[in-house]
Amino acid sequence: MRFVYYTLFVLTLGLANRAEAGINSNPELYIKTTIHGDFDEITNKVKALLKEQGFSVITEIDMDKKLNEKLDVDVRPYRILGVCNPGYAYETLQIDDNIGVFLPCKIVIKQLDDNQVEVVSVNPSQLMQMMGDEALTRVADQVTVKLKHVIDQLD
Amino acid sequence: MRFVYYTLFVLTLGLANRAEAGINSNPELYIKTTIHGDFDEITNKVKALLKEQGFSVITEIDMDKKLNEKLDVDVRPYRILGVCNPGYAYETLQIDDNIGVFLPCKIVIKQLDDNQVEVVSVNPSQLMQMMGDEALTRVADQVTVKLKHVIDQLD
Repeated sequence: MRFVYYTLFVLTLGLANRAEAGINSNPELYIKTTIHGDFDEITNKVKALLKEQGFSVITEIDMDKKLNEKLDVDVRPYRILGVCNPGYAYETLQIDDNIGVFLPCKIVIKQLDDNQVEVVSVNPSQLMQMMGDEALTRVADQVTVKLKHVIDQLD
Repeated sequence: MRFVYYTLFVLTLGLANRAEAGINSNPELYIKTTIHGDFDEITNKVKALLKEQGFSVITEIDMDKKLNEKLDVDVRPYRILGVCNPGYAYETLQIDDNIGVFLPCKIVIKQLDDNQVEVVSVNPSQLMQMMGDEALTRVADQVTVKLKHVIDQLD
């Protein structure tokens, strides 16, 4: 019996550690790829692929220009697209009407060295899993599949 | 001795449950308040208070109109402001150059019943704590103080 308690104790401690690790680590929060090519051409390709998956680009920020304008710092091209699939947006808002603080989903397009451009999407599934809402995670899973498809097609 | 194992087991189970609860609950992810008044007047007040705290509104989405246009559904006024303090944005980008997928910070202004309007900000500290990056959390803590100040002043 003592062995049983001990085993349960060790197992439970392991569970506690894994759960803590889940809070304090950053599990695949980004979906990304790096490709060779022209920044604007790649941006247009990203937008076309997003459209095929039912997403509109509803906001577009040139963060490099904003930072240069406000802080007089030189940053390489860094564009933030706010992308929205209205069907999924509506579905998530019906589950949690505060979820707008996470909408639209963001895709970053950033210039690297040597004509390399990195495209980074948030991983909505991971984000909603961290928030701990199963209903939201189920919708986020579907959005993630579509965003992954966009990123995969850039390679 | 059996009692000791049993006590440890129960204590550890409690720890596991608390840790799991941390993942599966939504700990103060939103900073919010509900006030009585006109939607557009409150929006202008929010913008003025944000400006006092060094934030510009760089994106603005009328989600109710987008959803009506795309899905033909009727949703009460629901505005999403994308707000940015360039100094903090630059600081966070130097820590994690993918953090743009969380920028700008969002504030939702939504119409409730009876001339009530709810203003909801994301809590950047909680979000960055969930991501598990201490350096980002330190910057997020400063942003959170400013956003809380905006929300508090609406009451």
